Amino acid sequence: MSAQRLLVDIHTHVYLPRYAAFLRSRTSVPRIFTRTSPESGKPEERLLILDDEPSGGRPIGAQYWDRDEKLKFMDRHAIDVSVVSSANPWLDFLPAQTAHTLAGELNHDLETYCSTGPSLQQNLKRLYGFGLLPLVPGATTESLVSTVEQIASLPHLKGIIMGTRGVGKGLDDEALDPVWAALEKAGLVVFLHPHYGVDKNAWGEKENGHVLPLALGFPFETTIATTRLILSGVLDRYPNLRVLLAHSGGALPQLSSRLASCIAHDPLVASRLKHDARYYLGKLYFDAVAYGSEELGFVSDAIGRAEKYANAGASAAVSSAKGTDGTEKRRAGAKRMLFGTDHPFFPPLSATEKWKSVVENLEAIDGVYGWDEAEKGAVRGGNALALFNLGA
Amino acid sequence: MSAQRLLVDIHTHVYLPRYAAFLRSRTSVPRIFTRTSPESGKPEERLLILDDEPSGGRPIGAQYWDRDEKLKFMDRHAIDVSVVSSANPWLDFLPAQTAHTLAGELNHDLETYCSTGPSLQQNLKRLYGFGLLPLVPGATTESLVSTVEQIASLPHLKGIIMGTRGVGKGLDDEALDPVWAALEKAGLVVFLHPHYGVDKNAWGEKENGHVLPLALGFPFETTIATTRLILSGVLDRYPNLRVLLAHSGGALPQLSSRLASCIAHDPLVASRLKHDARYYLGKLYFDAVAYGSEELGFVSDAIGRAEKYANAGASAAVSSAKGTDGTEKRRAGAKRMLFGTDHPFFPPLSATEKWKSVVENLEAIDGVYGWDEAEKGAVRGGNALALFNLGA
Repeated sequence: MSAQRLLVDIHTHVYLPRYAAFLRSRTSVPRIFTRTSPESGKPEERLLILDDEPSGGRPIGAQYWDRDEKLKFMDRHAIDVSVVSSANPWLDFLPAQTAHTLAGELNHDLETYCSTGPSLQQNLKRLYGFGLLPLVPGATTESLVSTVEQIASLPHLKGIIMGTRGVGKGLDDEALDPVWAALEKAGLVVFLHPHYGVDKNAWGEKENGHVLPLALGFPFETTIATTRLILSGVLDRYPNLRVLLAHSGGALPQLSSRLASCIAHDPLVASRLKHDARYYLGKLYFDAVAYGSEELGFVSDAIGRAEKYANAGASAAVSSAKGTDGTEKRRAGAKRMLFGTDHPFFPPLSATEKWKSVVENLEAIDGVYGWDEAEKGAVRGGNALALFNLGA
Repeated sequence: MSAQRLLVDIHTHVYLPRYAAFLRSRTSVPRIFTRTSPESGKPEERLLILDDEPSGGRPIGAQYWDRDEKLKFMDRHAIDVSVVSSANPWLDFLPAQTAHTLAGELNHDLETYCSTGPSLQQNLKRLYGFGLLPLVPGATTESLVSTVEQIASLPHLKGIIMGTRGVGKGLDDEALDPVWAALEKAGLVVFLHPHYGVDKNAWGEKENGHVLPLALGFPFETTIATTRLILSGVLDRYPNLRVLLAHSGGALPQLSSRLASCIAHDPLVASRLKHDARYYLGKLYFDAVAYGSEELGFVSDAIGRAEKYANAGASAAVSSAKGTDGTEKRRAGAKRMLFGTDHPFFPPLSATEKWKSVVENLEAIDGVYGWDEAEKGAVRGGNALALFNLGA
C-alpha cells in the first residue's frame, strides 16, 4: 500500500489500564465509579472528568482502555495507524511527586501498548503514542525535562499531549521555557488539548447536557491557550517547536485577524512580537477534527495565508494577497492539517453504527472545495507520516 | 448615485450626550472620569466600562458623542450612511425603573440625532439608529414591550442593540419570549453585541492590555449567547426575527459543525430543535467586522451552506453538498453580511491616519475569493439598505 494512501488518526485517546485503575480508586473527580444502570438494572461504570458533569458522567467501557477495542475501531473505519494519547485530565490533579512517578510508568505502559501491537508493514507499526509530562503545580524543571528525555528514549512515543495549565499558570509561564527547549531539541510534537473550558456560569441555567462545554468551552480553552503562547513569544523563542492543536485550533483561525488588529492597536503588546499574529498560524499544526468541509477549508486558508504576514503590516499583506488565487493558499495550508477521530468520545448512538464522528470528519475532508486528491491524501495520512517521521 | 454603490456602516457606536453625562455622574464602573494626562500634564477624560480595565480605561473624546465627529469620520472614509447604536454596556447596570426612563429618553435623543442630521438623497438620511430596551433584572414585560413599541414608532430607529444578559439570565430565558414576539412583529432588527467576555481568570497573569478580552472574550460571549438562543428554540419559535451578530458572529461559524455534532450526540437536546444547528446560521445576519478576507469568505460559506441542513441529518447534507461549486455557496452567504467599522473604537495610533480598522475591513471585503462585484457591493451597502428598508 502506498504510504500516501494510509489513513492515520492522530487524535485518539486511551485511558491506560493503570490510569483507569487509578481513577477507580478515587472518590473525587476525576474518577470512575460503578452504579446500577437506571435502564438495565445492571452495574455499569461511569466516568466523571468535569466538575458538575451532567447526567452522572459518561458511560465507560473497554473501548476506553482495551487495545483490542482500539484496533477493532481502527479496522472498522479503515484506519491504518493511530497515534494514541492519554485522555484528559491527564495528571493535572495530582501532587508533583505522584504525577512524576505516574507519568514515567504510563509512558512505559504506552510504549509497550504500541511496541507489542501489530505492524502494518516493515518499519511501520499500527500504534504510536503521545507521552505525558508531570505538568502540575510544584513540578520541578528537572522532573519535567527528565520526563521529556524519557519519552524521547521510547521509540514508539512521538510526542507529548498536554493541557493548558502548565505548572498552574498557563502556557505563557516562563517557567516552561526549559520544557519547550527540551521538547524542541528532542523533536517531540506537542499535542495541545483542552479540558477545562471556560467558567461554567457562561452556560446559563438551561439544561443542555454536555453540548455547551464540549462544543464551545473546549475550543475556547484551546484558543486562549494558543493565543497566550503566541503573545508570550514562545513561538518566537522556539521556532522549531512543533505544536499540534486539538479540534482544528478551536476558534483561533476565525479570530486571528481580529487578534492581529487588537494587537496592532496595543503598541506594548505589538512591540513584543516578531510577526503579525496571523503568521504564527503557519507555524502550528491543526487536527482536522472540525466536522465540516467549510471549517477545514477555512483552517487551511488561515494556515496558507500565514507567510504573507511574516514581515508585513496587515494592510500591505492584504494588498499583496489580493492577486493570489484563493485555492492556492488553501492547498498550501492543507500541509499542516491531520485527520483525527477523538475516539473513544462521541460514540455512536447504537452499537451497530459506524461512528458518526469518524464518518463526518472523513466526509468533511473529502468535501473541501479547492483541495485536490493530493491534499486530501496528505490530510488523511501523509502529513502525519511526515510530522511523526513514521515508516521512513 | 446608485443605491448599490453606497457604503453603509451598520456597526458604529455613540455615547449620546445624555448617556455620557450620566456616566460622568457615576463613581463606579461604567463611568467617565477626568484625570491629569501623564503625557501632556493636561486634564483628559477616560472611559471605564469593564471591571479591572487595564491602563486606566480608554481615552474618550468628542468622537464618542458628537454627531459632527461621526459625520467627519464618515466623510473621511466615504461612508454614506451609518446605522448608529449606543455602545456597551448600555443600561445593563441600572435599576429597572431608571433603565426604563433612560431608555425612553435615549431613544428620543437618537431619533433626533438621526432625523435632524443631513440627508444623502430624497428619502435617505445619512444617519439611522438602533434603540435601547431596559433589559435589566426586574424589568417587566410591559416595560420592555412598550419600549419596543416606542422604538417602532420612531421613524429613524430601525432596530435595537442588546447585550447578552437579557433580564439577568441570558437570552435563552423564556421571560424574553414576549420581547422577541414584539420585535418580530415590529420588524425591528436585533443587533446582538458583547460586553462581558468570559471569566477574566482565563487570561492569566501576563500583561496583555485589552488584547485578550477584546480579541477573544468579546467573540466568545457572542458565540455563547447565540448558541443558547439556538438551543432554546428562539429561532424556531420566532422564524421572522432578524438577529444581526456583532464581529461576524464571533466563533460561531467555525464551531457550528462541532456544535451540530455535539447536539447529535445528545438526544435530549437534539429532540428539542427543528433543524441541524448549522441551519440557523442561514437565518442570522453577520456584520463584516472580522478584519480578514479569509474570515469573511468562511462566514459566507457557513451562511451559504445552511439551507442544506434544513431537513437532513449531517451526513446526508455533506453528501448532497459535495457536488456544489464552493463559490456558489459563498456567493449566496454574502447576502447576510454587512459592512461595519466599530467606530469610535479601534482608533488610529496617530490623528492624521485613516482608521486602520476601517481600511482593513474594506480591504477584507474587497479581497474575498469567490465574491464578485455584486457580492462586494451588497456587503458594503446593498444588504443594509434591504435589511433596514432604507431609501425605498
